[in-house]
Amino acid sequence: MSLVESAAQFASHPLVSPYAFEPAQARDAVRGTVELDLPLRHAGQRKLRVGYEAVGPADAPAVLVAGGISASRHVIASEAFPQAGWWQAQAETFDTASLRVIAIDWIGADGTLDAPIDSADQADAIAGVLDALGVRTLAAFIGCSYGAMVGLQFAARHGERLQQLVAISGAHRAHPYASAWRALQRKVVALGQLQCAEDQGLSLARQLAILSYRTPQEFAERFASAAVIDGPRARCASEDYLDACGSRFVERFDATAYTRLSESIDLHAVDASRICVPTTVVAVEEDQLVPIEDAYALVERVKADTRVRILRSKYGHDAFLKEADAIAAILRSALADCCEAAA
Amino acid sequence: MSLVESAAQFASHPLVSPYAFEPAQARDAVRGTVELDLPLRHAGQRKLRVGYEAVGPADAPAVLVAGGISASRHVIASEAFPQAGWWQAQAETFDTASLRVIAIDWIGADGTLDAPIDSADQADAIAGVLDALGVRTLAAFIGCSYGAMVGLQFAARHGERLQQLVAISGAHRAHPYASAWRALQRKVVALGQLQCAEDQGLSLARQLAILSYRTPQEFAERFASAAVIDGPRARCASEDYLDACGSRFVERFDATAYTRLSESIDLHAVDASRICVPTTVVAVEEDQLVPIEDAYALVERVKADTRVRILRSKYGHDAFLKEADAIAAILRSALADCCEAAA
Repeated sequence: MSLVESAAQFASHPLVSPYAFEPAQARDAVRGTVELDLPLRHAGQRKLRVGYEAVGPADAPAVLVAGGISASRHVIASEAFPQAGWWQAQAETFDTASLRVIAIDWIGADGTLDAPIDSADQADAIAGVLDALGVRTLAAFIGCSYGAMVGLQFAARHGERLQQLVAISGAHRAHPYASAWRALQRKVVALGQLQCAEDQGLSLARQLAILSYRTPQEFAERFASAAVIDGPRARCASEDYLDACGSRFVERFDATAYTRLSESIDLHAVDASRICVPTTVVAVEEDQLVPIEDAYALVERVKADTRVRILRSKYGHDAFLKEADAIAAILRSALADCCEAAA
Repeated sequence: MSLVESAAQFASHPLVSPYAFEPAQARDAVRGTVELDLPLRHAGQRKLRVGYEAVGPADAPAVLVAGGISASRHVIASEAFPQAGWWQAQAETFDTASLRVIAIDWIGADGTLDAPIDSADQADAIAGVLDALGVRTLAAFIGCSYGAMVGLQFAARHGERLQQLVAISGAHRAHPYASAWRALQRKVVALGQLQCAEDQGLSLARQLAILSYRTPQEFAERFASAAVIDGPRARCASEDYLDACGSRFVERFDATAYTRLSESIDLHAVDASRICVPTTVVAVEEDQLVPIEDAYALVERVKADTRVRILRSKYGHDAFLKEADAIAAILRSALADCCEAAA
């Protein structure tokens, strides 16, 4: 295992930073890549390079943050990496003066690992990155969607390194209906790949995924009901939006990565009775992928203190991205526990 | 307009029937094709051939029965046409000794009409078929799914010819979320067509449609949650079932027909305040395509006596096919009204 740090880490250091900023706003931010030799659950021993980003003082309590399959190591903007992160809506929630936020790029996300990837593999990759960073114990693992699944695996496999888990919109299993929905998305990608129309297939798969992330309630508020004649075809009011979602995704994501990470959700299964870490499970009533029944089944099995928070949101599975205030309240409560524990 | 009757109508007559049956069980069954010159709403004047089937005495009260976009004129088995119909589960409900059940093949269902088709066009086609059959007034129009949409159009446009409407799992509008789901199905068909993989595209679209017809509850009961490694890929427990649904569909349905009839659902919009016919609206709480809110909005607008029946079913939109007893009870009540009116 070796640690390769990018030049970007120095950018966060006032003396060498190319950015002008007030020292009071300064945040340590570091990016790097760790080379790991991991025994993958379904694909044998593999040498992998895992990208990470860490924001906040190296000696502060460490919080691992993980999002959906299309999220990255860049969670929130920092002086060093000022572009918006995938969870920018929670930037104020993470006080990176007193906490260190760590995140990885999922193994498989660069499209070079064309093999079945397990959520347990991701948890082991995170453990390897933490070793490389010299982080023995996480004050909290905060995971959303696929990140919640990986957090549950981390708690089950590396529980001695974790003080608290917050699992948002992810459970111990993939729901069979959600799996069917994803399996069809992967078949759409495969149809595109087979026919030299990879971008079209990936775009369509993403559009189908968006439907599963959102809800009928949101679409009813947002889009007209009647289709209109547009040339030789009828066109529905939501098609422009969905097309745009698909196009943006194709620009930043790879078909192989999508297939393998989508598969990884469906391979996910964790024995929650192996989890002995205090756990907060957050579920959304309107979530079409993770029914609240699965959230309740999960907390019944965890062998530690659990809290369940049920939200209502027209954004369904995407509530963790869209319901900033409700999520912030939950995170603040969890992070206050971290800081107390660290104090 | 001309009336072309097939030889099959004679098969139901004891003297020339090739089938051995007891006269007491005999049912008149007739199939034919009507040539109509219809002003289509979005596609101009068109000469169309519309297939129909009628089961029951020619002088009995006539009931028009219409199903989803993949249903046909063959509703129930008869001596003349003994194969199971698409609504065979309701065969006992329709007493074809005292009622005449009439149904059509949707215009566009043979794939030869590659133009936008409106639910109003289907209603007009039905009116034309009834003219050809000499049926002035329907005792009832019983429509399910797309058939309910067409029934609402028939009630709005030809209300003077209708005594009662039963609209099951279909409303005055297509819901925006359901429309988005169908729009993506059509794009999958188009991706297949573009890439000389028409069957694959159509099969995948059907599989996506099946997901929308059914529910997470049913899948949770029916399929395991964890995917398994199957060669180089992960395979979900429902994939065999979905593949089989897709393959069966491709054998009997055409990509153009699918696209145009799917579009037709999304073009559907009827001003329910123009409906002055007693109407029973049946909705299913778990229906992912027709939320019960839309059923309530519909009955609020109809300008006649209305009844709403709300069912609960894990089969969601497909409840009209799968919940035989609950549907039979509703139909019997409606058909009893027909017979009283006719008596």
